[in-house]
Amino acid sequence: MPRVKVFQLERTLRTMGGLTVTDITDDVNDAVRESGISEGIACIYSPHTTCCVRVNEFESGFLEDFTGLLRKLVPSDSYYAHDDWGRRTENLCVEDMEVGNGHSHCMAMLLGTAGESVPVREGELQLGTWQRVLFIELDRERDRRWLVQVVGT
Amino acid sequence: MPRVKVFQLERTLRTMGGLTVTDITDDVNDAVRESGISEGIACIYSPHTTCCVRVNEFESGFLEDFTGLLRKLVPSDSYYAHDDWGRRTENLCVEDMEVGNGHSHCMAMLLGTAGESVPVREGELQLGTWQRVLFIELDRERDRRWLVQVVGT
Amino acid sequence: MPRVKVFQLERTLRTMGGLTVTDITDDVNDAVRESGISEGIACIYSPHTTCCVRVNEFESGFLEDFTGLLRKLVPSDSYYAHDDWGRRTENLCVEDMEVGNGHSHCMAMLLGTAGESVPVREGELQLGTWQRVLFIELDRERDRRWLVQVVGT
Repeated sequence: MPRVKVFQLERTLRTMGGLTVTDITDDVNDAVRESGISEGIACIYSPHTTCCVRVNEFESGFLEDFTGLLRKLVPSDSYYAHDDWGRRTENLCVEDMEVGNGHSHCMAMLLGTAGESVPVREGELQLGTWQRVLFIELDRERDRRWLVQVVGT
Repeated sequence: MPRVKVFQLERTLRTMGGLTVTDITDDVNDAVRESGISEGIACIYSPHTTCCVRVNEFESGFLEDFTGLLRKLVPSDSYYAHDDWGRRTENLCVEDMEVGNGHSHCMAMLLGTAGESVPVREGELQLGTWQRVLFIELDRERDRRWLVQVVGT
Repeated sequence: MPRVKVFQLERTLRTMGGLTVTDITDDVNDAVRESGISEGIACIYSPHTTCCVRVNEFESGFLEDFTGLLRKLVPSDSYYAHDDWGRRTENLCVEDMEVGNGHSHCMAMLLGTAGESVPVREGELQLGTWQRVLFIELDRERDRRWLVQVVGT
């Protein structure tokens, strides 16, 4: 009779800003192995509002294409009420007052959820041939962290 | 030896239409507490095709920015085959014939999944400082509901 | 005292290319039934970088609207560094050199995650009235597969 297991791990990183993408697949795979969980679901999660975790190919040409597309769809030089300090009254954050990040929030919402859920089988993430787990920075250079939560047997 | 628990809760709300965003974080946190689950994953889910649950900041300037962006990318005044009642034959819904919602479906698909999965640790959703759980209405004023499902120990 | 169960199933399909959408709801429902899991979470997942699984309505007018929008936002006739074989050095794939798919990767990232997580209650996926589970091909006609992983009791 299988027993349920829940495993969790948190990692920190320093991003470079400017829509940088970090391949965290090896760390996530290590976490799944360390969990001792053979069958289940892994949830890889960004606790930041201007980052996300996404699964896709880690190929520099594609990442250049995608960041170009994102900048075109969500221009950083438009007006953002989120960055209008003469008007804003909620969630004031001194650090953000120097460099606006309204466009980063919009990019994050457009990209979708904060994390990705991936099936685990025989102790391995069920990533396809070209799939990698990517941590995407949509804001400036910052200290960040991501979590992985594995639930299964 | 930990025992598996699954907890579920459903809540209803009346939205206001016009891309309104409701902060449901407190209700989701209450559900997690009520579940008695200490370590696991919470899946917060919209069972509607023109709404979604998303995690981001709840700040009125940002929400104004994002809804403006969404309206620009997915204009409601374009032609939508979904709303062409002279042509459409599938899934006929009398209620939708008065006000088309083809653009709302397109917005929902562009935004991503119907729900969000968030890690739970020590009985708490692992939301970051500015992260809130948001219920996003992409259609007109309607009666809606959302579900939360927590699985863990 | 409930016991944890994890159930997994994999299915293959041949897509038609050109942004085709396949309704896989019945197969996913069958998997949930076969799992014997009454309460839990189902993760339906695409292991491909140019496909995704999404929940929305399966109505041909809407699918035509959405694919039109996607082609407008991510034109296939733009320059993609991912398809520039005079320059690219990473992840070389002979099959892709005949027909570029840089735009398909960009579409997949814009759409969001590779899969969807849906609550399961009383042995049923908690899909709303119009919600269907869709497998979305963003690339050419290809052999594909999807996975469903159900965790619960």
